[in-house]
Amino acid sequence: MLNKNIQTFIACDSEYSEAETVLFGAGFDGTTSFRPGTRFAPEAIRSESFGIETYSPYQDKDMLDYSYFDSGDLELPFGDTEKVLSYIQQRSETILSDGKRPFMIGGEHLVTLGSVRAVKEKYGELYIIHFDAHADLRDDYLGQKLSHACVLRRCHELVGDGHIFQFGIRSGDREEFEFAKKHTVMNKFNLDGLAGTVEKLRGKNVYLTVDMDVLDPSVFPGTGTPEAEGVTFKELREAVTLVCSQLNIVGCDVNELSPHYDPTGVSTAVACKLIREILLALSE
Amino acid sequence: MLNKNIQTFIACDSEYSEAETVLFGAGFDGTTSFRPGTRFAPEAIRSESFGIETYSPYQDKDMLDYSYFDSGDLELPFGDTEKVLSYIQQRSETILSDGKRPFMIGGEHLVTLGSVRAVKEKYGELYIIHFDAHADLRDDYLGQKLSHACVLRRCHELVGDGHIFQFGIRSGDREEFEFAKKHTVMNKFNLDGLAGTVEKLRGKNVYLTVDMDVLDPSVFPGTGTPEAEGVTFKELREAVTLVCSQLNIVGCDVNELSPHYDPTGVSTAVACKLIREILLALSE
Amino acid sequence: MLNKNIQTFIACDSEYSEAETVLFGAGFDGTTSFRPGTRFAPEAIRSESFGIETYSPYQDKDMLDYSYFDSGDLELPFGDTEKVLSYIQQRSETILSDGKRPFMIGGEHLVTLGSVRAVKEKYGELYIIHFDAHADLRDDYLGQKLSHACVLRRCHELVGDGHIFQFGIRSGDREEFEFAKKHTVMNKFNLDGLAGTVEKLRGKNVYLTVDMDVLDPSVFPGTGTPEAEGVTFKELREAVTLVCSQLNIVGCDVNELSPHYDPTGVSTAVACKLIREILLALSE
Amino acid sequence: MLNKNIQTFIACDSEYSEAETVLFGAGFDGTTSFRPGTRFAPEAIRSESFGIETYSPYQDKDMLDYSYFDSGDLELPFGDTEKVLSYIQQRSETILSDGKRPFMIGGEHLVTLGSVRAVKEKYGELYIIHFDAHADLRDDYLGQKLSHACVLRRCHELVGDGHIFQFGIRSGDREEFEFAKKHTVMNKFNLDGLAGTVEKLRGKNVYLTVDMDVLDPSVFPGTGTPEAEGVTFKELREAVTLVCSQLNIVGCDVNELSPHYDPTGVSTAVACKLIREILLALSE
Amino acid sequence: MLNKNIQTFIACDSEYSEAETVLFGAGFDGTTSFRPGTRFAPEAIRSESFGIETYSPYQDKDMLDYSYFDSGDLELPFGDTEKVLSYIQQRSETILSDGKRPFMIGGEHLVTLGSVRAVKEKYGELYIIHFDAHADLRDDYLGQKLSHACVLRRCHELVGDGHIFQFGIRSGDREEFEFAKKHTVMNKFNLDGLAGTVEKLRGKNVYLTVDMDVLDPSVFPGTGTPEAEGVTFKELREAVTLVCSQLNIVGCDVNELSPHYDPTGVSTAVACKLIREILLALSE
Amino acid sequence: MLNKNIQTFIACDSEYSEAETVLFGAGFDGTTSFRPGTRFAPEAIRSESFGIETYSPYQDKDMLDYSYFDSGDLELPFGDTEKVLSYIQQRSETILSDGKRPFMIGGEHLVTLGSVRAVKEKYGELYIIHFDAHADLRDDYLGQKLSHACVLRRCHELVGDGHIFQFGIRSGDREEFEFAKKHTVMNKFNLDGLAGTVEKLRGKNVYLTVDMDVLDPSVFPGTGTPEAEGVTFKELREAVTLVCSQLNIVGCDVNELSPHYDPTGVSTAVACKLIREILLALSE
Repeated sequence: MLNKNIQTFIACDSEYSEAETVLFGAGFDGTTSFRPGTRFAPEAIRSESFGIETYSPYQDKDMLDYSYFDSGDLELPFGDTEKVLSYIQQRSETILSDGKRPFMIGGEHLVTLGSVRAVKEKYGELYIIHFDAHADLRDDYLGQKLSHACVLRRCHELVGDGHIFQFGIRSGDREEFEFAKKHTVMNKFNLDGLAGTVEKLRGKNVYLTVDMDVLDPSVFPGTGTPEAEGVTFKELREAVTLVCSQLNIVGCDVNELSPHYDPTGVSTAVACKLIREILLALSE
Repeated sequence: MLNKNIQTFIACDSEYSEAETVLFGAGFDGTTSFRPGTRFAPEAIRSESFGIETYSPYQDKDMLDYSYFDSGDLELPFGDTEKVLSYIQQRSETILSDGKRPFMIGGEHLVTLGSVRAVKEKYGELYIIHFDAHADLRDDYLGQKLSHACVLRRCHELVGDGHIFQFGIRSGDREEFEFAKKHTVMNKFNLDGLAGTVEKLRGKNVYLTVDMDVLDPSVFPGTGTPEAEGVTFKELREAVTLVCSQLNIVGCDVNELSPHYDPTGVSTAVACKLIREILLALSE
Repeated sequence: MLNKNIQTFIACDSEYSEAETVLFGAGFDGTTSFRPGTRFAPEAIRSESFGIETYSPYQDKDMLDYSYFDSGDLELPFGDTEKVLSYIQQRSETILSDGKRPFMIGGEHLVTLGSVRAVKEKYGELYIIHFDAHADLRDDYLGQKLSHACVLRRCHELVGDGHIFQFGIRSGDREEFEFAKKHTVMNKFNLDGLAGTVEKLRGKNVYLTVDMDVLDPSVFPGTGTPEAEGVTFKELREAVTLVCSQLNIVGCDVNELSPHYDPTGVSTAVACKLIREILLALSE
Repeated sequence: MLNKNIQTFIACDSEYSEAETVLFGAGFDGTTSFRPGTRFAPEAIRSESFGIETYSPYQDKDMLDYSYFDSGDLELPFGDTEKVLSYIQQRSETILSDGKRPFMIGGEHLVTLGSVRAVKEKYGELYIIHFDAHADLRDDYLGQKLSHACVLRRCHELVGDGHIFQFGIRSGDREEFEFAKKHTVMNKFNLDGLAGTVEKLRGKNVYLTVDMDVLDPSVFPGTGTPEAEGVTFKELREAVTLVCSQLNIVGCDVNELSPHYDPTGVSTAVACKLIREILLALSE
Repeated sequence: MLNKNIQTFIACDSEYSEAETVLFGAGFDGTTSFRPGTRFAPEAIRSESFGIETYSPYQDKDMLDYSYFDSGDLELPFGDTEKVLSYIQQRSETILSDGKRPFMIGGEHLVTLGSVRAVKEKYGELYIIHFDAHADLRDDYLGQKLSHACVLRRCHELVGDGHIFQFGIRSGDREEFEFAKKHTVMNKFNLDGLAGTVEKLRGKNVYLTVDMDVLDPSVFPGTGTPEAEGVTFKELREAVTLVCSQLNIVGCDVNELSPHYDPTGVSTAVACKLIREILLALSE
Repeated sequence: MLNKNIQTFIACDSEYSEAETVLFGAGFDGTTSFRPGTRFAPEAIRSESFGIETYSPYQDKDMLDYSYFDSGDLELPFGDTEKVLSYIQQRSETILSDGKRPFMIGGEHLVTLGSVRAVKEKYGELYIIHFDAHADLRDDYLGQKLSHACVLRRCHELVGDGHIFQFGIRSGDREEFEFAKKHTVMNKFNLDGLAGTVEKLRGKNVYLTVDMDVLDPSVFPGTGTPEAEGVTFKELREAVTLVCSQLNIVGCDVNELSPHYDPTGVSTAVACKLIREILLALSE
């Protein structure tokens, strides 16, 4: 007898019960104002993940030695943003209530809000480490409070002053940079302050959100709003490895890959490799 | 002294006061569930319109002999569908209140609802002629009432039984085709019944909505949901010429061009040519 | 608890035991001499199948009313053509031995040979209906007997003179056309002789192989060797519907989609729609 | 010892002395006002010609039975249009003076002028058969007399009234259509009058110029100014076969392929097939 | 009443009279010998400029605090290079005569000659700072004096020995490098000597011309002749900021973006960001 | 009389007898398991080589001062891997037997095996310098011994322990890295140990194989399996210059360019530039 065809992220096909980290896709891009297409990221990432190896020579670890579960993609009702966020929140809550760590693949950056709501609810005090080219601290965007451009501002309302650490930020309007001076810890342009942040957050509950456009567009052009002068892949890989191996990561996400904008496929391959490194760094 | 740079659809740069027909763009694709990108249509159409001529050898008319005004694109708040529709409705109402005919360039098909609301409000009884590959008669789509897949269903709630004439329909679920049997006049697969419809609607107020995917995808691949076995450009051109020259068209739209999906540019050129033919047929 | 993520061709997720027809993908293009890429077809077809409806207004039938099983893709060892064919043969044999009909999605046309071997072995006398732009009757290609350009020649060695009916053929070298005059029944350029063929084959065991490049490249550009002046989608759809509803189809395949060559996605959408029509026509 | 690598159009590698028809490429697009890229056509056509067969089932003739010589591409000084034309004229003169027929592959349509000058000079009275979507009869374009949009107007100055027969024309400004009424024989929209034209021109010296955009953009999107509602490949193939087999063709060209605009490669394959059919029809 | 649709570079919609710097587009690529397409740059840059912010965190300045005027694109007669240059010269002269600084967006690099002629005429002694991968110092190219490959040689004839400072040059023929040793100040491969040059030119009249291909093709692939081993965006941004904030820039241009060659859009976004930084650095 | 059209790599058109280094193309990708397309590399490289200069400012040498011969592409029987390798071996043997150095342009990396067999046969003891992102040391891949993923393992069987020096390796399964520890000299991630290797191999017979994916995908995205965090072009250029100018290179190859995956053309341009630098460094 024949089995059904199952496609997961590479080496994420353990039993649910055995997995400590659980992936899911949230391919939503309904508030994207410039170039849409992050909705295609979860499927592209799964498909292209078979082009990378399960073994990391950087960490000398192999995904085959650990258990990961990929729970597939959410079906999201485009046009009703609040409902989209509640579906994401529910999926994260289910995973959290089973004592596991949710790992979301976006979608536009707004999806982070749904997952942060769930994590905050469970853990109370929560810190956020945020890699991004854009501050995402607008109060509203064309009158919309639930916009990708406002997602960290909404998160700030949940976690409060001094709980968001931003790295690589190099774009925003003047107000966002002013807001950051008072309410978040922002490292402009690069990842320089990361080691100190890791020291500060040791033992705390931390949510990690990676907007892939923090990378230089030379190596990650497949995103809606590419922003020149970003960090290198090596810098980002070392950063997420440090964060995930040293801190108590209670949830995380990787977002803003828009695969169709990069016909070379490099952006998707880069996202796959980063996800592998995060998964391995999270595993002991 | 230098003038400002102005880009309109070709030959649509008359004074507003002189124009009988007024174009505007509604580049919204926020409920598109499959492949987004119609948001880019209005700009692409304007830009590529300079690749066609103002003279039509089919109608032996020249746009330069008439007055058209292109009022530019609406800035629409992605993520709040109801507000998007109200902005569209307002633009149409402004144009209608000045005694002119609104000609909207979509965007996804849902934008039609905003314009139909405005036209219906002004004219009372209203008939709709609808060219499309898809029935668009779902009651809801993943729970959403305001979806591109439901737009003619929403229009039916406004204009009532027997007021919508559908042509070229070749895709939908079974319920949509059942609904059409009772509530609309549907011509499946082709445009065969058009001459009779034109006779029936002579002297009535008619809104024309053209989903460009009614065309065969061979000549119009640049759309979110291409559906094989469509009508030819010649058939559609002759159809819109007939409708616009014989009936009292109180408003119209052309939608569902997704220009980035067709790197050859043919789809955009086809849309430009159809818009020219409609504009000329509307002009006496 | 969460289920695993499963991706099948739309509406092909019944239990294996209930399905009469079983799909599988054979994404092999290792002998393709010109432009490779059909290896990507099965995955592309599954993914894009969610852009079409399960209901066919042409046949007034809905896939949801029948049971189909998609058994996923074979993992094929590129570089060893004979082993590739034996893997395909085995999958078809498994399906046949369970009393079901194998429906293979290629891959290059050579994959047909693996499936025909299996079907021939089970059924003894076998007829083949072949839609294609190319004769595929070369004895060898650069010395290779197992080449896409030779696949019907190899099939002829299995089923014998007068058992292969070819339609739409418009390309080949002179020798192939000479061979066809003596050994196959070839309908050049179009599908004209199909009705007669169907009468002749009533009650016989028939294998249907559709090289999608029989279509005009205007509507199906996504193939390795596009050949102008092909048949329309309507002609092909009506042809496969006739064949599959009237004859005893013991196996079939659809091949030669090379999805990356058509960035509009139309070719893949066209393949999906044709597969739906075949599946529905096979179901009573 | 090793030979040098030689790439010609398929089966055009005879000795120069044996060939009756001599190909050359004129990849010039320096006056193209809209979308450039025809400069890449000659190389693309050569390269892709190996994807078609040398045998034509339509004419039941094989290129291998005849002698053709491909003399390669001219190196043209972009920026000096008059010098470009003189280089083209010289190449045609060389071929003509050796008693052979020049077959030029453009390039934008203006290149035709260089070749027509050479042919006119040798033959005195000359007729032109012109397949095109555009009239190309402007007197000047933005002040330029030597523009692709004026090429038939310049040819008219050489060959005189009633010597140019135009087919498939469906775009131009009003003045061009007025000019055509008085000075050329124009068949708008289709190829209907061709049989009569062939009768009329029997025994005369005829130059054939094929602007590939006469084809419908569905099958030939790879061109700078695609124009909907063109002729089918079958119509054009039969037309050129008729012309080339019945008339005394003293020179010819195929132009306006812009290969990069069609990533599917279909447009280039279509051009290759048409060139094969012309070459075979010219050979007895 | 409705206003006309106006598209400018972001935040360049002041009144002409208020602006110190005036943009215009010169989308000419008629002498480009390899891959054309820079003609599309001005429109692409305007359109994509809305994807960046008006605020620069590097300079902590906002375009909204200054006045810029975008005077739109020149309509240029392809095929007559001298006339093209004279149109460009006229536009620059108009802007200069109103006491403003012309900022031209190319187009191929030859357009610089038109603007330099105007500036030289007004200011007498003139220095040129030139960022580029290519020396552009050929005396002629295939016999053409007015070629993109000769533009700095032509400028040298205007401004004289020691008045041209070249940075980032890494491609050219041997003669160009020999010429540079005698007549210009060339910094090969990188921007190392810039600080010294700035000291030297303090208080002089300087024209800045940026061929975007000075950047590494990894971050700027959208150009006709990409040349590996270029400078980083950070290096170029800091360089132009230094030059524009410290020196008396009497005119400038940014050229050689060929947007269609980079389907990711990154090259265009990079050009937009550089233009913003230049505009801000020019403003006090 | 007219000459035939000849296309070689730029400046590689000397007489065979005069050339010390002889190029040939081996466009084979038949065992590529992920994304095919390297078959197109030799033709793309030849065509695009005319976009670079013959003069290198890095080495201050000009290809026009030396003699190179491009012997064109092998016609390879896809589907029979062993035969493909024997054709490659024969071509290399021919070149070697004439006292010349073979320079092969792949194709997938497996082609190296054919050339190494020929060189090993002639020279007996042989060292290999290998630049690559991937170890390519698998014993088999899905049961295939002749796979691109096994090519250095097969070479190791020929040249023995300690004769292969690998640089830039950053991907492989755990077993490959274990194998390398015992049998090859592997420099992970970068090119750091190269100077020492050059010292060690002075006077030995060395074969150089460059898998272009050793480069960072930002500057070389056009390859089947892009792998982030590679070396820069500058590092690779300096490395091959060092190796080729200091060591006795008896054969070499450049492989794994898949030009269609990079529509910007940068990858092909990068390969051309590297080949020029290698050719110049090999020439005294």
